[in-house]
Amino acid sequence: MTRPHTSSSESPLMVHLLLCCTFLLALAAPATTAASVPAPALTPAKQNMTWDVEYILWSPDCQQRVMIGINGKFPGPNITARAGETLSITVNNKLHTEGLVIHWHGMRQVGTPWADGTASISQCAISPGDSFTYEFVADKPGTYFYHGHFGMQRAAGLYGWLVVNATAEQDEPYRRDYDGGELRMLLSDWYHDNVYAQAAGLEQKYDHFQWVGEPQTILINGRGQYDCMLGAVTRFHRGIDRRARTCVRGKEAKLCGDEERCLRRSECGPYCPQSQCAPVVFDVEPGRTYRLRIASTTSLSALNVQVQGHDLTVVEADGNPVEPFTVPDIDIYSGESYSVLLTTNHTPTFYRSGSFWISVGVRGRPPKTLPATAILRYTNSRFPWPGSPPPATPAWYDLQRSKDFTHRINARRNAAEAPPPPRTEQVNRTIVMLNTQTLVGGHMKWAVNNVSLTLPATPYLGAYFYGVQGSAFDASGEAPNGFPGGYDIDLPPANNSYETTLSDRVYELPHGAVVDVVLQNADMRRDNDSETHPWHLHGHDFWVLGYGEGRYTSGRERLNTEDPPLRNTVVVFPHGWTAIRFVADNVGAWAFHCHIEPHLHMGMGAVFVEGAHKIRELDVPREAMMCGVIRTTAAALTPAKPGSSAPAPSAHR
Amino acid sequence: MTRPHTSSSESPLMVHLLLCCTFLLALAAPATTAASVPAPALTPAKQNMTWDVEYILWSPDCQQRVMIGINGKFPGPNITARAGETLSITVNNKLHTEGLVIHWHGMRQVGTPWADGTASISQCAISPGDSFTYEFVADKPGTYFYHGHFGMQRAAGLYGWLVVNATAEQDEPYRRDYDGGELRMLLSDWYHDNVYAQAAGLEQKYDHFQWVGEPQTILINGRGQYDCMLGAVTRFHRGIDRRARTCVRGKEAKLCGDEERCLRRSECGPYCPQSQCAPVVFDVEPGRTYRLRIASTTSLSALNVQVQGHDLTVVEADGNPVEPFTVPDIDIYSGESYSVLLTTNHTPTFYRSGSFWISVGVRGRPPKTLPATAILRYTNSRFPWPGSPPPATPAWYDLQRSKDFTHRINARRNAAEAPPPPRTEQVNRTIVMLNTQTLVGGHMKWAVNNVSLTLPATPYLGAYFYGVQGSAFDASGEAPNGFPGGYDIDLPPANNSYETTLSDRVYELPHGAVVDVVLQNADMRRDNDSETHPWHLHGHDFWVLGYGEGRYTSGRERLNTEDPPLRNTVVVFPHGWTAIRFVADNVGAWAFHCHIEPHLHMGMGAVFVEGAHKIRELDVPREAMMCGVIRTTAAALTPAKPGSSAPAPSAHR
Repeated sequence: MTRPHTSSSESPLMVHLLLCCTFLLALAAPATTAASVPAPALTPAKQNMTWDVEYILWSPDCQQRVMIGINGKFPGPNITARAGETLSITVNNKLHTEGLVIHWHGMRQVGTPWADGTASISQCAISPGDSFTYEFVADKPGTYFYHGHFGMQRAAGLYGWLVVNATAEQDEPYRRDYDGGELRMLLSDWYHDNVYAQAAGLEQKYDHFQWVGEPQTILINGRGQYDCMLGAVTRFHRGIDRRARTCVRGKEAKLCGDEERCLRRSECGPYCPQSQCAPVVFDVEPGRTYRLRIASTTSLSALNVQVQGHDLTVVEADGNPVEPFTVPDIDIYSGESYSVLLTTNHTPTFYRSGSFWISVGVRGRPPKTLPATAILRYTNSRFPWPGSPPPATPAWYDLQRSKDFTHRINARRNAAEAPPPPRTEQVNRTIVMLNTQTLVGGHMKWAVNNVSLTLPATPYLGAYFYGVQGSAFDASGEAPNGFPGGYDIDLPPANNSYETTLSDRVYELPHGAVVDVVLQNADMRRDNDSETHPWHLHGHDFWVLGYGEGRYTSGRERLNTEDPPLRNTVVVFPHGWTAIRFVADNVGAWAFHCHIEPHLHMGMGAVFVEGAHKIRELDVPREAMMCGVIRTTAAALTPAKPGSSAPAPSAHR
Repeated sequence: MTRPHTSSSESPLMVHLLLCCTFLLALAAPATTAASVPAPALTPAKQNMTWDVEYILWSPDCQQRVMIGINGKFPGPNITARAGETLSITVNNKLHTEGLVIHWHGMRQVGTPWADGTASISQCAISPGDSFTYEFVADKPGTYFYHGHFGMQRAAGLYGWLVVNATAEQDEPYRRDYDGGELRMLLSDWYHDNVYAQAAGLEQKYDHFQWVGEPQTILINGRGQYDCMLGAVTRFHRGIDRRARTCVRGKEAKLCGDEERCLRRSECGPYCPQSQCAPVVFDVEPGRTYRLRIASTTSLSALNVQVQGHDLTVVEADGNPVEPFTVPDIDIYSGESYSVLLTTNHTPTFYRSGSFWISVGVRGRPPKTLPATAILRYTNSRFPWPGSPPPATPAWYDLQRSKDFTHRINARRNAAEAPPPPRTEQVNRTIVMLNTQTLVGGHMKWAVNNVSLTLPATPYLGAYFYGVQGSAFDASGEAPNGFPGGYDIDLPPANNSYETTLSDRVYELPHGAVVDVVLQNADMRRDNDSETHPWHLHGHDFWVLGYGEGRYTSGRERLNTEDPPLRNTVVVFPHGWTAIRFVADNVGAWAFHCHIEPHLHMGMGAVFVEGAHKIRELDVPREAMMCGVIRTTAAALTPAKPGSSAPAPSAHR
């Protein structure tokens, strides 16, 4: 499938006029289709969980560090739910001094926007010693995960699986295509520097700015091996054992360096059965088809996944069915998830042991991090370890390969779970979002339409609920709907002479409006450079209407309105654009942001407030909003001499 | 001066009866002398400060780490106040995810207990993005400091100087004894592992318990040199320069190791004028007497300070005048401060350059940390660096030397600022506090009377103010007034078969009561071991009535009620006891705890609530109490549909 390219020659004034007209026309008859939010099946089932979130000493890559763990472990507990089931998760904050929230990535939180787990947006951070119960419906089968959404806590290890299985009534369209059960790979990247230091580095001014750099290790289900790639010394065709040298020869040698050092650094870690950094092994039966769920909650890295000798058939993306297509490997960006089908169709021979490497390598950035490896092991395997080296990751700079993969993803045909989007004539509003990197007051920032997002002390949802928008954030106007017409996306911001500012303004979307967003990538601060950003929308799936090169020009671009995939995360490629559509029918305040943790920290995000005047009608848990100006307001309300008139406290220890 | 010893043969029942009778007798005529709290001079002066507390990348010992800094620096700003002046310090929390408080160590906070800066006790932690203004009177001239008092944030670098100068009307009795101005040494210890990891290690169960260990570096005014001791290579009698080898030969050689490594590790750090780890140099004029203020905010280490070739005359301890005595060196424990007078009475010769080492070494624990060094440099010095090696720290295990020093500290005779304590007949209550270390539920804890302190989510002060004690903490009874009579302090807790529990109970002290507290040290978890603990009381100075060996026996011990020193921090020596007295005339909730950061974290503390029923009459800033059960109560009070009746928010962005 090809996607249209565009030049940036059209008049920006014309763009704005067109957008404006489209908006006015569409406003007269707002689309009320809630296609993106089907009513959840009415299953009365409820799962209750209690989590203690605390610091743990852990060795995810054979090097001990402090991490944020849940119930004493990393990654956090697996959640496996049934569609329509209510999840009730009580989070006890046992971090001594840190607040926290947990975001349920991919859960649309229809009617429960306060359970979205975004600090400053959907709730106050849960203070140390306090608890909060997230209660929401797992509305749709699919592959999801959860993670911290306060500061850079996701990168500190606060994440885990959230898998929603289909009910009998609401089956997944590809369920009958696999008979071998499912496998799961939650991918992440890991830094040895703690997130406090990372954040401090990002905030240093001018030349002291310190980028987080490439991660030390890629983790699979929370396990990796720092500075060491598990690979057989293939010339001997022997398996790995404690005495074997583990470094890959040849191409990776320069990365792995001295084999002795490599062995020493990983110590006995990977070889001790109880080790926290033991390699992940998937035991599978031959002659079956498995569903492999893959999700990425990396802080930075774009990844490529391949399973030695096995093709992958993509059937699901971000909890939505896609038209199946088969590839030798997949790309996955932070915030995305896929299900791929994999058939164990090899017969072990002397040459093929029946054990196969799964390789996960970095794409899109010059790789300084060794690929992660796991093992797919047939039950009839002749050796426990593969007899050949792990497959090499595609060249990191091969951007076209990434685009080709991304462009192949379309909605599954004739699937009820993959409805088409509202028609373009129904679009009420189009927001074009220019993505730039620039200095603001000497600090390196990412910005959208020359505005770098700062988050207020008062959560937006609470501000609207209590009607204190004016004192909680800059409610004097909306965030910019577009960017200056003369902006040249092929030049750095400094050459464009448009000042970037910090702001916590939001976009207000009328309830039910059909909204198009065009993410427009541009030159970074250094000329002739632009990066790939995965953008994630809370509270929704959206239709991905298309991707293009250069500057987006309204009306000129060919958009796919027939079978666009529904997703919650989408990439915008360097110097290109990505267009999405969604229906603003979910009352609440929703983050839309680059899922790269340091980029969000540097302001690369926006907030959509949907159905603003309906927020007051919600049953917002007020005790979750008692921070910022609401706390001050509430304090002013409490009686001065509470012995007489204070109500009995409702909470107990 | 000698202090009485005691055996532990007396019946514990008798102890309790005696204590009880003393209490009842005294209660009839409560002492109303507020000798420990003289009214501050009515100076209308006010100092306003605004502090941004944030993470910074800093190299306090030539190794970069993330620290908690104030206004972009470490240590925090120096506060220099006049007695009676109001300090108004607005603290903006710019830590992304951490709450914080700041305690003004030594400030008695008379009438302003909410400004004491103790999380869970005097206020809620200031949430990220929020601000709080500490406003209190610098009531008394002396040498103080401030520091974080939430989790282990003090050890993360959140501290700085607070020096209160005398007014003309209220001079310090030793002011006329020095003509050379003053010098300041704020001492601390520094760990390369961050405090989150330290805390996680302390909380691991059973054999996984991980002690913080000895610090990597001792810092003087926030500067040190990791793994390297600045010392001239004396055989050449030359000064230090960039080319010189810096390691001390001979005795320290085994600590310092390879000189090349030593040089390499400190890199150019100590020699670059702008370096964050450059050595501290005090430039002084010859023939004068200086006041050297020394304070210790170490996380763990007890320290010894000596100035090469100069005796030290102690004149002040913790902001109170002491009867002057002269020593070659002083011991200082975490939480303590001293002023010593030092006369620059050397004449530079070929042998004596006129530059002298100041050595700060670890006492009381097997030293794994190199002594810190600073330089006292006469203006007529022939060389910028001393020509002889730094003086050696007294043997770490020479406990008697430490005791001798401590016992020499007494109140300055006939000084109005050093009033005598209420008489023993006036004592209303005596609390004996057994200090033990033991396992509770598999976790290593410190305990007082077999109770390990846990801190509640709701601050005690707020709980009393709002009358919600019952739901905020365990208000069903007081913390234990003593310990079981059969407890053998020479045996580990496990051999005593008294169970230790966790609790957040408090001690309630009637307003104006005269209270004696006896700190009783005991065997640790491992047999035949006991440590020195510096205990710090908030809201007060107390009289140190005496120290003794073994078990304290009421009525048997000879206490000094004539010229006991007033202090806010006092040590209890291994297997010994320390008796103090104070007047509970400061309405509020006050921490009393071991000032060793990990010990407090492990529960070694208690809380005194003074004048409980008067707390409601205070003008407690309610917005500082909106956490825990008070937050929930406040949330219940706010109108559900605030558009109609919510008051306009009082806070602005």
